[in-house]
Amino acid sequence: MGYQYWRLDILKKLCIDAFLKFGFSSEETAIITDVLLTSDLYGIESHGMQRLTRYHKNIKKGIIHINAKPEVVFETPVSAVIDGHDGMGQVISYNAMKLAIEKAKKTGMAMVTVRNSNHYGIAGYYARMAAKEGLIGISCTNTNAIMVPTNGKSAMLGTNPIAVCVPAKPYDFFFDASTTVVTRGKLEVYNKLDHPMPKGWAIDENGRVSTSAGHVLSNIAKHDFGGILPLGGDSEMFGGHKGYGWAMVCEIFSSIISMGTTSNETGKDGRGLICHGFAVIDPAIFGNPEEIKEHLSAYLEKLRNSPAADGADRVYTHGEKEILTMESKDAEGIPVNDNTMIEVMDLCKDIGLEFSDYFGDYVPPESSFKGNPI
Amino acid sequence: MGYQYWRLDILKKLCIDAFLKFGFSSEETAIITDVLLTSDLYGIESHGMQRLTRYHKNIKKGIIHINAKPEVVFETPVSAVIDGHDGMGQVISYNAMKLAIEKAKKTGMAMVTVRNSNHYGIAGYYARMAAKEGLIGISCTNTNAIMVPTNGKSAMLGTNPIAVCVPAKPYDFFFDASTTVVTRGKLEVYNKLDHPMPKGWAIDENGRVSTSAGHVLSNIAKHDFGGILPLGGDSEMFGGHKGYGWAMVCEIFSSIISMGTTSNETGKDGRGLICHGFAVIDPAIFGNPEEIKEHLSAYLEKLRNSPAADGADRVYTHGEKEILTMESKDAEGIPVNDNTMIEVMDLCKDIGLEFSDYFGDYVPPESSFKGNPI
Repeated sequence: MGYQYWRLDILKKLCIDAFLKFGFSSEETAIITDVLLTSDLYGIESHGMQRLTRYHKNIKKGIIHINAKPEVVFETPVSAVIDGHDGMGQVISYNAMKLAIEKAKKTGMAMVTVRNSNHYGIAGYYARMAAKEGLIGISCTNTNAIMVPTNGKSAMLGTNPIAVCVPAKPYDFFFDASTTVVTRGKLEVYNKLDHPMPKGWAIDENGRVSTSAGHVLSNIAKHDFGGILPLGGDSEMFGGHKGYGWAMVCEIFSSIISMGTTSNETGKDGRGLICHGFAVIDPAIFGNPEEIKEHLSAYLEKLRNSPAADGADRVYTHGEKEILTMESKDAEGIPVNDNTMIEVMDLCKDIGLEFSDYFGDYVPPESSFKGNPI
Repeated sequence: MGYQYWRLDILKKLCIDAFLKFGFSSEETAIITDVLLTSDLYGIESHGMQRLTRYHKNIKKGIIHINAKPEVVFETPVSAVIDGHDGMGQVISYNAMKLAIEKAKKTGMAMVTVRNSNHYGIAGYYARMAAKEGLIGISCTNTNAIMVPTNGKSAMLGTNPIAVCVPAKPYDFFFDASTTVVTRGKLEVYNKLDHPMPKGWAIDENGRVSTSAGHVLSNIAKHDFGGILPLGGDSEMFGGHKGYGWAMVCEIFSSIISMGTTSNETGKDGRGLICHGFAVIDPAIFGNPEEIKEHLSAYLEKLRNSPAADGADRVYTHGEKEILTMESKDAEGIPVNDNTMIEVMDLCKDIGLEFSDYFGDYVPPESSFKGNPI
């Protein structure tokens, strides 16, 4: 599987034109495009450009409603519950986080929770919106069920990522992680490459550790037993019950308090039914925000300067790699894999855009890969 | 190493008499005793009775100040920062959580953060205080440095537990977990038993995986390199950077926002310098708390009823085991290990209590175990 590098502005133009064609307003299009391409800039390919086709399919299937009007169904000065009415996850979430930021600026802290939404991209995007305004941001989402609880064999929880972003220099503390040991995207990569997975990532339909990514993905797609393990793996020996616990915390702050749909029931009746949670805390409620920022920055610096283990290059702090990746991508362009480019070519035909208007005379190579089970 | 079972009221009487002898008021004594024995009732031996001697030593060394008056040094309607002035962690934390609960009842959500405190026992105790009043409780603490960051070999973070407790029936969701793969207590048990540790728990002074609990504990005691790994283990392959990230989140909500001491600097200058964080959220800010509780309870029930993996008994939800353990402990008594009983006997002599007033003619057996490195 090869990669082709493209300048950010080319991919941006393509995304904007595509989302406008899908029927989104220019304001909505700008939001969705920024969430997607920020993911590619961070190096999180699974949540970037390659989602374009999947979103288009979900719009055509009626899972994502272009004209949905998200509605605040419950509100206090420090909180809101939003019904997304099956709209686009990124648009609903951007506005939900904006509302949480507005409220936190007045009250010191606020939480907004969302039900009946769709896939919202990277959790970290929304957490970082708060940090860009000097605030602490937290974002989480449930997803289609893919994680098996400790001792179980039925996928009852999503990958359930949680992101926390806190202002610091020269890089924000920016932690964005699924509560599974690995994401579905990682299994898809191993399947594409036809490599055996490390033991401890996923289990088969009997609840036994499996090294076949294709087999596990196919079980997941068929809603058969088996799935990805929680962070900590398949037993309490290495803390699998802790990853399962963090997934539950995500579920509570997304689907439970919003009275939405838990991961094990998402995707039913032709709807996404995904839920999100957002929290914002103003560090000024604890003293001088600049001093707190300095305090965190100094600690992060000490961590980065602490001695490396034999065989390791150095200690990183969370968010550093994403920022460094962003800088390199700005210079080298964004890598898009051949299979995604084939999908984009097909998409352009489908919605009436000229592929060559963006990519000149480039033609993606034929591929023998038939795609991952969805 | 043998265990002796004792009725709760006997251990309670001993703790109360001991803490009064140490110099605490009867109100403070009641708080500390309840935190310690709740830990034993939950089956978390490492944070229960066996801490009695360690607390006494720290009082004698002047690390814990009996007469400290914790002080609110910054406050808003939704927050407070408390300087513990080197007091007893349990007393400071109980009052900090009480303040957070009071504030959250008025404003919907609140956070209280504490600096210059000492070891506070189990994180979950304070989270559950909120849940007992129908609120969502969160509690975290940093500790002496014991966790190495991913790629590093110097202990820069504590075991940094985070606890989240949310009202549910028949058991609250009650998640209380260190962000290390295992706690120091687990290494101490392996050292006592002279068993090799599983690979993936801890590393030696060169940053290489070690199976010798004694060697790692001795390094930690000497502040040499090496330590316990984050949840997820020694590399990004199984998500070690995620456990490290959760430890950072704990650090941020305890030592950073309180302008306190980060784990890597605790225990200096003959002071504990431990920091805690507490948050309380009233579910009523999202709608009807009873409906939210039902929604969570139904999901927890589905998880418990979901099919077990081959070889496993069944799926548990967080808090269930603690409640079941509490019930069995109430019936069978609380197991206290022989080494702890030897320490208790010595302590009684030291502070002028009659060991036999509590334990009759019981005499703990001689032990060849010389204790874990502290």
